[in-house]
Amino acid sequence: MKPRIIIVGGTAAGPSAAAKAKRINPNAEVVLYEAGEHISTGICEVPYLVGGVVPDADELIHFTPSMFEKKKGVMVRTYHLVEEVQPSRKSLVIRDLSKGRTFTERYDKLVLCTGSKSRRLEIPGEDGRNVFRVKSIEEGKAIGKYLSEFAPRRGVIVGGGYIGMEMAEALVRRGLHVTIVHGDERPMEGLERAARDAVREELKRNGVEFRGRSEVRSFTADSSGTVTSVNTSRGMVETDLVILSLGVYPNTTLAKGARIRVGTFDGIVTDERQLTSVDSVYAAGDCCETKNVVHNRSMYLPLATYASRQGRVAGANAAGRKEVFKGAIRAMAVKVFELELAQVGISEGEAVESGLHVEVEAIECDSRASGFPGNSRLHVVAIVERRSQRLLGANVFGRDGVVARANVLGFAIQQRLSLRELASLDLIYAPPFAPLWDPVLILGNKARRGLHDI
Amino acid sequence: MKPRIIIVGGTAAGPSAAAKAKRINPNAEVVLYEAGEHISTGICEVPYLVGGVVPDADELIHFTPSMFEKKKGVMVRTYHLVEEVQPSRKSLVIRDLSKGRTFTERYDKLVLCTGSKSRRLEIPGEDGRNVFRVKSIEEGKAIGKYLSEFAPRRGVIVGGGYIGMEMAEALVRRGLHVTIVHGDERPMEGLERAARDAVREELKRNGVEFRGRSEVRSFTADSSGTVTSVNTSRGMVETDLVILSLGVYPNTTLAKGARIRVGTFDGIVTDERQLTSVDSVYAAGDCCETKNVVHNRSMYLPLATYASRQGRVAGANAAGRKEVFKGAIRAMAVKVFELELAQVGISEGEAVESGLHVEVEAIECDSRASGFPGNSRLHVVAIVERRSQRLLGANVFGRDGVVARANVLGFAIQQRLSLRELASLDLIYAPPFAPLWDPVLILGNKARRGLHDI
Repeated sequence: MKPRIIIVGGTAAGPSAAAKAKRINPNAEVVLYEAGEHISTGICEVPYLVGGVVPDADELIHFTPSMFEKKKGVMVRTYHLVEEVQPSRKSLVIRDLSKGRTFTERYDKLVLCTGSKSRRLEIPGEDGRNVFRVKSIEEGKAIGKYLSEFAPRRGVIVGGGYIGMEMAEALVRRGLHVTIVHGDERPMEGLERAARDAVREELKRNGVEFRGRSEVRSFTADSSGTVTSVNTSRGMVETDLVILSLGVYPNTTLAKGARIRVGTFDGIVTDERQLTSVDSVYAAGDCCETKNVVHNRSMYLPLATYASRQGRVAGANAAGRKEVFKGAIRAMAVKVFELELAQVGISEGEAVESGLHVEVEAIECDSRASGFPGNSRLHVVAIVERRSQRLLGANVFGRDGVVARANVLGFAIQQRLSLRELASLDLIYAPPFAPLWDPVLILGNKARRGLHDI
Repeated sequence: MKPRIIIVGGTAAGPSAAAKAKRINPNAEVVLYEAGEHISTGICEVPYLVGGVVPDADELIHFTPSMFEKKKGVMVRTYHLVEEVQPSRKSLVIRDLSKGRTFTERYDKLVLCTGSKSRRLEIPGEDGRNVFRVKSIEEGKAIGKYLSEFAPRRGVIVGGGYIGMEMAEALVRRGLHVTIVHGDERPMEGLERAARDAVREELKRNGVEFRGRSEVRSFTADSSGTVTSVNTSRGMVETDLVILSLGVYPNTTLAKGARIRVGTFDGIVTDERQLTSVDSVYAAGDCCETKNVVHNRSMYLPLATYASRQGRVAGANAAGRKEVFKGAIRAMAVKVFELELAQVGISEGEAVESGLHVEVEAIECDSRASGFPGNSRLHVVAIVERRSQRLLGANVFGRDGVVARANVLGFAIQQRLSLRELASLDLIYAPPFAPLWDPVLILGNKARRGLHDI
């Protein structure tokens, strides 16, 4: 009999897993279940859909279900909610949402790609008709529709993380006056202070009001269920639109029901082969924790890149191959209006928390040769292990060439290089692209002197 | 007595060596001799001075002699030509060009940074009043002056290498109709064929006529010594201005006079400490050959980055420290109008020549997320050692994000990674900056499949 490989969840990890499993074992019956309408969507781009950079939501759908079936040989069942995993019988209880009936299905191998859920405030009004989250194409379209129909003038964004920043830019592009309400004094907790200050400055420069140290206490809504003001610990903000970007958490309802082990961050724990604690059940993507190879601790970092990679590995192993996902360093970037901002590796806080002795090196330099078009000041804050001088993490920010340098620093972190070793990298110099001493080399040279001074 | 460290040559390597030597041994008497007017100049930017991107020649002078003396504590003697090195006596014969007299001076340590010279055609007319090279700020200013005074309409560039490309763009910016005369069928011999074709296409798109397989036979000049046509093996080209960009060769007259060993490329041979074959004599920069660590052969690659680094190492060692320059991979980039082009590592030809068995992998993909501003098609041609799958070299070209990817590939070459290892790099994904699968990962994934197919 043909082996049956079942994938639960169709956003990023699921389609990767399904396609890979089928490619490796064309004999297998590979079935992908998805509770919603779409599979294989790019939800990272949703803020850009709202802002009009991406003109059409269809561009965020990489495959329709029928295209995916045809091209990848995977059976796709949308509007199907997997309600229960029964590991002892290797079977699933599945609800066909369009027909309203439930059935069971057997699996040989199962891959859970159940993704994440938006955090909620648990405050009345947060599901008001002008309150949105940024978690799916459907919500992106709903925001767009609301903007077009009601032409709101003011928007409040609750939550000053990555998505909050991108949504601020999107709403400003759509002509709204934007206020960000955030718990901490500065936006973007994961970053170093200098980077966070630069973000706050960039928001201000673009007319966005950042209200730090503010907790949402309640919403005031009119009779139609439209929120008219957000009431915070530091005063009331009148608004025509609310975006909740409070972060996400792993969706593990299904996994927990099957007694699959979860970790510190409440995400599914897997080994390097993406196998869970339960026989024949793999997991990948936003429902999982990921090992951070810099300090060898698990982290919860729901990024599309990790989802795709873990999905491939899980799918390959479900189909009988032996592949591994060894972990990640954290490599991410965000654009906040004209400010580019990237983080690689671990933060100073994480390093200290995990018992590492670190020092912080900061530089500011040109991104290209002085006077050349596009040249701009570039900042690097590097977290360095004191004794070994090993690079553990970096924030890079500025208006030009940020991600390029962050990727080189991320590479150095993965290769466990010291700052001193950075200084001997052979990096490109050409006036239109880089200064004679690339920022990475300037950072390396700084460490070299530092060592000499000791 | 104070040790006396003498540096010969003041462009890039010389000032680096001098400043470093003085910093390491503040007691030393460090003297820098330069035959010309300026020291510490950025000659890479000269085409951009001609094209008007850099508005003022003074921006290319990083230090005036007196600033350098004040800031670095180095004695600077411009208009002083070192005519002879006498290693047995540890002395130099020096001509003071402004006073017209010669004197001798003793050294304890000597650093030769005599740079390179422009290749010549050895054809009458090549020193005509409208014929220029691109080797110094003075020449850059002279070209600019000629353009302003005589408003030439047509220009011929002889030589289709890096400088030829940059000068073509500069002259087009200044409104000239430009023809490039070049010996080979395609420009830029060091690159792979696809990259060279892209350059030729970009020249055409910008109205530059590229005449390949053409040798210059003679110049026709009028009575004032102004060249009016360039006569080639494939016909005559009328012109108002001629740029000779035939490449450079190491300036080793002084070294050879002292019986210092030169290598395959006629450049000074040094060890890792930049010490020449002669006791107490170091060398750095364009007068030297450099070890290419990819195939462990020497190469001649006169780049400002290597000059600065070798200068620092030579200066440090002349002052008593033990530092090394371990070699380079070759990392360079050029902008040809809107085309960005980078080369890291060795070419297919070099690999074959040095007995390596290689295969070539080529990919074409997006530089950013599809549909995002700035996104453009990016090309990578990778040279891979067949058995080990180790990356040996790459050409990257396109209109966006080229140097960023080339630096990551160059890093991988330095770390001796295989293509398969590239695939597990943790690189940044964010729609405004990169696609979900960065071009480097796409290349890596390709190799992975390749291995599987065997």
